[in-house]
Amino acid sequence: MRVILALCMLAAALMAQEPQFTNSGELVLPAHYREWVFLSSGLGMTYQPSTAANQDRSPSFTNVFVNPAAYRSFLETGKWPDQTVLVLEVRFSETKGSINKDGHYQAGLDHVAVEVKDTARFPASGWAFFALGKASSGKLIPRTADCYSCHAEHGAVDNTFVQFYPTLLAVARQKGTLRP
Amino acid sequence: MRVILALCMLAAALMAQEPQFTNSGELVLPAHYREWVFLSSGLGMTYQPSTAANQDRSPSFTNVFVNPAAYRSFLETGKWPDQTVLVLEVRFSETKGSINKDGHYQAGLDHVAVEVKDTARFPASGWAFFALGKASSGKLIPRTADCYSCHAEHGAVDNTFVQFYPTLLAVARQKGTLRP
Repeated sequence: MRVILALCMLAAALMAQEPQFTNSGELVLPAHYREWVFLSSGLGMTYQPSTAANQDRSPSFTNVFVNPAAYRSFLETGKWPDQTVLVLEVRFSETKGSINKDGHYQAGLDHVAVEVKDTARFPASGWAFFALGKASSGKLIPRTADCYSCHAEHGAVDNTFVQFYPTLLAVARQKGTLRP
Repeated sequence: MRVILALCMLAAALMAQEPQFTNSGELVLPAHYREWVFLSSGLGMTYQPSTAANQDRSPSFTNVFVNPAAYRSFLETGKWPDQTVLVLEVRFSETKGSINKDGHYQAGLDHVAVEVKDTARFPASGWAFFALGKASSGKLIPRTADCYSCHAEHGAVDNTFVQFYPTLLAVARQKGTLRP
């Protein structure tokens, strides 16, 4: 019973995550985002035409995590509820190391960015983006930045790139919530 | 209060996961492993010398998830407790699609394999591997298979490839539990 209660308290702490802001309006990095629900990862993804310059560099992994409450809501409805928090974690890659001979595996943290849905705080579209780097909080990315227009125009579901999250893409198809 | 209780019950269900077996000894795929803790992913990783043949094929993503109770134990001790369940999910990759111009993102499921630590059931090393394919349960991989000797010889911590899980690698370094 004690164990169950301890698990409950821990679970509630982990699962009740809503976006937290500092007094100056910075978004606070969710302390346990690595225990949130993993949506997918990419390697070397780019939305710009590839050039010799960006092909030469060492590609980065991009891991996406979402708060568990929003995830479960998406499974039921195919939509994101208010207070959704999506954490994009960008990590360096390595290729030959230990017994690995080819391909890529993940290494140190490069930076973190966060997308939140908070309709009271961001009435324009409900969504906002924050650049955290490696810090414990980060500033709002200005509304004129490409991320806002790109997510609005190309996000398969409500400003998010569900087209790159295979398990949620299946849910959105089933629920009929994909952008026409 | 109701919401907290519902979250508790859900959380307990998610977090109390231990390996489950059928009467014939097959391992049952954990129903909610996609809500377990993500350790890392690789793309096109191979432990064999690369050849023209394996470089030509479309690379696969390999996502690794662990049951939350085992994860929290590892954070505290740098070791895996009994009843650890590691799920390896292999997914196909795609490269040009939607607005993505280069690199790779994850697509449909290829197959699943599971490594479990259950010292009562598998007294030899404590660990066993199961091949599930796309099924809801799967057979024990014979002890003579390469995965057993390779994990035993090269796993950075106790039969597991912690060297490829950057957040746990840092924990194992700090706790002094890395293979010498």
